Amino acid sequence: MTLIVALDKPQSLGLVDTLCGVASGFKIGVPLLLDVGLEGLRRARSRCSDALWVADMKLADIGHVMALTARRLAGLVDAVIAHGFVGLESALDILAEECRRMGMKLVVIASMSHPGSRIYDKVLEDVLEVIEAVKPWGVVAPATRPNIIRRVRRRLGCSVAILSPGIGAQGASPGDAICAGADYEIVGRAITSSENPLQAARNILEQQRRCRRACREPQQT
Amino acid sequence: MTLIVALDKPQSLGLVDTLCGVASGFKIGVPLLLDVGLEGLRRARSRCSDALWVADMKLADIGHVMALTARRLAGLVDAVIAHGFVGLESALDILAEECRRMGMKLVVIASMSHPGSRIYDKVLEDVLEVIEAVKPWGVVAPATRPNIIRRVRRRLGCSVAILSPGIGAQGASPGDAICAGADYEIVGRAITSSENPLQAARNILEQQRRCRRACREPQQT
Repeated sequence: MTLIVALDKPQSLGLVDTLCGVASGFKIGVPLLLDVGLEGLRRARSRCSDALWVADMKLADIGHVMALTARRLAGLVDAVIAHGFVGLESALDILAEECRRMGMKLVVIASMSHPGSRIYDKVLEDVLEVIEAVKPWGVVAPATRPNIIRRVRRRLGCSVAILSPGIGAQGASPGDAICAGADYEIVGRAITSSENPLQAARNILEQQRRCRRACREPQQT
Repeated sequence: MTLIVALDKPQSLGLVDTLCGVASGFKIGVPLLLDVGLEGLRRARSRCSDALWVADMKLADIGHVMALTARRLAGLVDAVIAHGFVGLESALDILAEECRRMGMKLVVIASMSHPGSRIYDKVLEDVLEVIEAVKPWGVVAPATRPNIIRRVRRRLGCSVAILSPGIGAQGASPGDAICAGADYEIVGRAITSSENPLQAARNILEQQRRCRRACREPQQT
């Protein structure tokens, strides 16, 4: 399975039952976490505990503080997302160690999907170097720029999972990122704001399957 | 007044009464916010509502998501901290607009205090350009590297407030950042872990005053 659903509003937590077993996992971010608190997250998770739960904290602090945040999430999520931009020393090194200790998957952002991400892009090589040293479970690379996904895959090999946001509202189509080498596509509003979220999720999975078949064919990229 | 106290544990919220009127403000970060929730923040704030309350969210997301987070904090804090490296377009532009709408002060990080911050430093010029365009109320620059504070001040002039972390546990001394041009020094453990937090805060203010006198003298830097 290759679909992670980004839940963004308290109401969207109601979709956990509907999408359990269809989506590979669920991603929840800071605004929703502020709305429902750790206890709300615990309750949501308990309704689909075998899914991959990802806390999209966009951690970007010194290591000590990122580790404190991750510790709050122990037992509530399987994975936590941090920025590669903050670097290794006294930052991701400490967080990675804490995640290993807790058995939590670390996911590091290599690049973002929005236009302002050009500063990030300027130092992509340095960020990839940091990620190579950190050896996280996963990397975030944007579906809106498949070239970056390809570059991450070439550079880091197949031992790392690639998670791709940017599908739907931000412009990429389901399957684009998978075809470029991503393992999971993260989809939010295209599912959570749909009139029939289950059908929307199934359609996306179907599109991904088609794309995967297509991208096995020889390509000229 | 030139001192912002970084509160990091639920117990440290007990210091709000003690330090109210001595510190200019209080900074609370993500780990503590996860511990006490928005309701805990509201209660803490009500005990010293004239202070400057800063939510150190280290926001680093696309604009839409950062704005959602800031909206959760409306009425609970006076200022929110976001990263400069996420850039302007579809990121800080949207957040800045939302902050203006809500009357919330935006504080943008120009540089961090830890060794891994070398990636940040590499693009300092780009980050400063973004900050110039965003026109935030404040900028974060590390007390551990006064040269960066001086550079921010020279570049952005006196219309922006400079907030400096890194005093105490991270190595800088009280007054160092002020002398380099900062408006506020952010101090955490040196106060919150002290046996006498009130005395510790007063000592820091005294050191800052001495430093300010000293740095009025001609310098050879």
